[in-house]
Amino acid sequence: NELPLNELAREIESTLLAEHVAILLEAFPIKPRLSLWALLSSDYQQDVFLEMKNESRQMLLTTLGDEACFTLFDKLDANSLLELIEDLSDNLIEYAITQMTVKQRANFKKAQDYSDSEVGRWQSFDDIKIPQKLKVLAAKKICAKEQSPLTDVIYVTDNQGKLLGEIAINRLLTMPDDKPLVEVTLEEVQKLEASKDIDEAVEDVISSYKSALAVVDENGCLTGRLDLHAAYKYKEQQTDNQLIQSAGLSEEEDLFSSVWLSSKNRAVWLGINLLTAFLASWFIGLFEATLQQVVALAVLMPVVASMGGISGSQTLTLIIRGLALGQITDANRHAIVMKELKVGVINGLLWSTVIGLITFVWFDSTMLSITISLAILGNILVASLSGVWVPWVLNKLNIDPALSGAVILTTVTDIFGFIAFLGCGTLLLL
Amino acid sequence: NELPLNELAREIESTLLAEHVAILLEAFPIKPRLSLWALLSSDYQQDVFLEMKNESRQMLLTTLGDEACFTLFDKLDANSLLELIEDLSDNLIEYAITQMTVKQRANFKKAQDYSDSEVGRWQSFDDIKIPQKLKVLAAKKICAKEQSPLTDVIYVTDNQGKLLGEIAINRLLTMPDDKPLVEVTLEEVQKLEASKDIDEAVEDVISSYKSALAVVDENGCLTGRLDLHAAYKYKEQQTDNQLIQSAGLSEEEDLFSSVWLSSKNRAVWLGINLLTAFLASWFIGLFEATLQQVVALAVLMPVVASMGGISGSQTLTLIIRGLALGQITDANRHAIVMKELKVGVINGLLWSTVIGLITFVWFDSTMLSITISLAILGNILVASLSGVWVPWVLNKLNIDPALSGAVILTTVTDIFGFIAFLGCGTLLLL
Repeated sequence: NELPLNELAREIESTLLAEHVAILLEAFPIKPRLSLWALLSSDYQQDVFLEMKNESRQMLLTTLGDEACFTLFDKLDANSLLELIEDLSDNLIEYAITQMTVKQRANFKKAQDYSDSEVGRWQSFDDIKIPQKLKVLAAKKICAKEQSPLTDVIYVTDNQGKLLGEIAINRLLTMPDDKPLVEVTLEEVQKLEASKDIDEAVEDVISSYKSALAVVDENGCLTGRLDLHAAYKYKEQQTDNQLIQSAGLSEEEDLFSSVWLSSKNRAVWLGINLLTAFLASWFIGLFEATLQQVVALAVLMPVVASMGGISGSQTLTLIIRGLALGQITDANRHAIVMKELKVGVINGLLWSTVIGLITFVWFDSTMLSITISLAILGNILVASLSGVWVPWVLNKLNIDPALSGAVILTTVTDIFGFIAFLGCGTLLLL
Repeated sequence: NELPLNELAREIESTLLAEHVAILLEAFPIKPRLSLWALLSSDYQQDVFLEMKNESRQMLLTTLGDEACFTLFDKLDANSLLELIEDLSDNLIEYAITQMTVKQRANFKKAQDYSDSEVGRWQSFDDIKIPQKLKVLAAKKICAKEQSPLTDVIYVTDNQGKLLGEIAINRLLTMPDDKPLVEVTLEEVQKLEASKDIDEAVEDVISSYKSALAVVDENGCLTGRLDLHAAYKYKEQQTDNQLIQSAGLSEEEDLFSSVWLSSKNRAVWLGINLLTAFLASWFIGLFEATLQQVVALAVLMPVVASMGGISGSQTLTLIIRGLALGQITDANRHAIVMKELKVGVINGLLWSTVIGLITFVWFDSTMLSITISLAILGNILVASLSGVWVPWVLNKLNIDPALSGAVILTTVTDIFGFIAFLGCGTLLLL
């Protein structure tokens, strides 16, 4: 039974990408995950480790023996260590640094000068470059070597490493070998300052329609590059994190994160939500006397709350996208509010009529029917307004509306809905 | 006043990408949007039109005169017309086809052979290729011409156009000009069958770590390629559509879509939601007698519903991601259910205790406090189970759980929560 398993592991290593094996491993509960892990060769373990989520890495590090851990950090390159650095203890980091090549260690130091929000921290060091004092032949030789993917230009620098321009590799094809590079017309490079915000840099790379953009330090010296793959991966990661965090989960949670850790992560969000739920309850409590006399109000409360919540989150979703694209400004906000209000009026009138009729048939009470119609109409209008205003204000406060917008919005519509419904009920039905 | 506006338009055209101008235009209400549009040159209008959302295009087409419309479809290439085809009337499509170059028309016909879900429909026709009977010099000349972005290989074909292999452009640099291509070792190409599912093809391109993959027809003949940009754009679009649709919006809705159209799109979702809300109400109605006697139950109902909804959607979010990554299978589903149940037990015990205490302090009733604790614990457990099962079943039924999972889940937790809470209340409090 031992042999086929090993063969399976070799088969996996030769056919699957490390990132897919990382996803695969995370689909296993802890015990079988460790057995599978043990079957992988140590080089491959390193690749897979780099692709795992933080929590899965932690799990491995705490379970593996010291020696097995250390072999994971042999011959890491700078980019890899930077990715892991948050998860590692100081002595593991130190060990990894001592095991690096001199060049990678220099790159690592370079990147560490920048914060997590700066492109310098995210750049890769696989750019190809050549001093301008050389000839075309030298450039051809450098380019002809095996390159990282998405390499279609060679950067030209002066003697101090300052970036002067770039030459597309295909342009080199028809140039004579002995032509000095100083005589070659360089293409202008779209540079990224290493201290530039990573989110903006990512957009720059994507909209440049180039394979990669050069990263330069404050002296204009070439330090690395940011390629299209890295840019899109970063963006995907941000979207995924937002989605996960908006449910109150930790972005690092995997399917088999420890029960304790998962419970802790999720408890916080449940607690916040409990506060808003009790707030709504408190408002309902103000109308206890009314509820006692007209119990139908209690029966219909969920309808009022839910119609407001849904129409609010429709507006919210549209506005969050508009904010992310930069489409919503002081200049057009009023027009957007007006448009959403008009949509609210149409849907409010439609559904308050429908709900009013259903209520009349169900409870045979004109007043109850009028009460719920008014509450629904009002709540849908309030939802339309809040759907624009809540994310707008959060955005102004530099809070990501995608994370907390929905909770705040439904709190608003719940509370308004209950007050409107029970308030009208008190006036009309008692 | 006229002159500066025109200058502004020229400035916009020279500095912004068409896709950004499309986003910009969609940030304007209809009237100023049309004035801005009129300022753009007709070539640029075409580029921008290609980048717009369907609804914005429709709006333009219905507002512009016939002549202005037709100029939008002069000299389109095959890929552009394919993108527009859903939005155009038959006579506009015919006009656009007659205005195409012969080559583009051929490409257009080729792509039309495939459906929207096949990569053949999405391929671009900017691949570079060379027959194997020629020499290296010819390949160099082709490559040296200005290329589309993300072009780093030249495809080699036989006389019938069958794809034999590829040569990386940088490898050509050091090859002698008079070497026949038949003597060059070709690299193996990772091909995409034109009839392959576009979603899978996109994943192939992204995980290939190449700039683009070749697309071949059923005879193995090269027909085009799918590049990294196109692949990531497609994926981003899918994610965005999912987000928008999960709120019951049309994926094409822009900020200033017509009020009527927006209202219609959103009404459907509100209607579906209304059914589920009335279903919950109906279950509450079964306990009318209980509510009449213990009105505190009505006051606390939102707390029970909301705690179940939130913990359910935490599990749901994690499971939807796991399903999308292919991490959840028949083999590990049971282990996942067990893990989520354990998390549910921990958070259920924690929060039912907290809520029980708060209720005791608020209403000074041990029985009410026990009632709500039991209901919360039960509802959080049911939410954990449904959070796994609802998306799992939807996925088996080929329904995207990201679109309707949340509605179904909260319906389940609402109804279970109300029954548990009011049921326990009836038993313990009456």
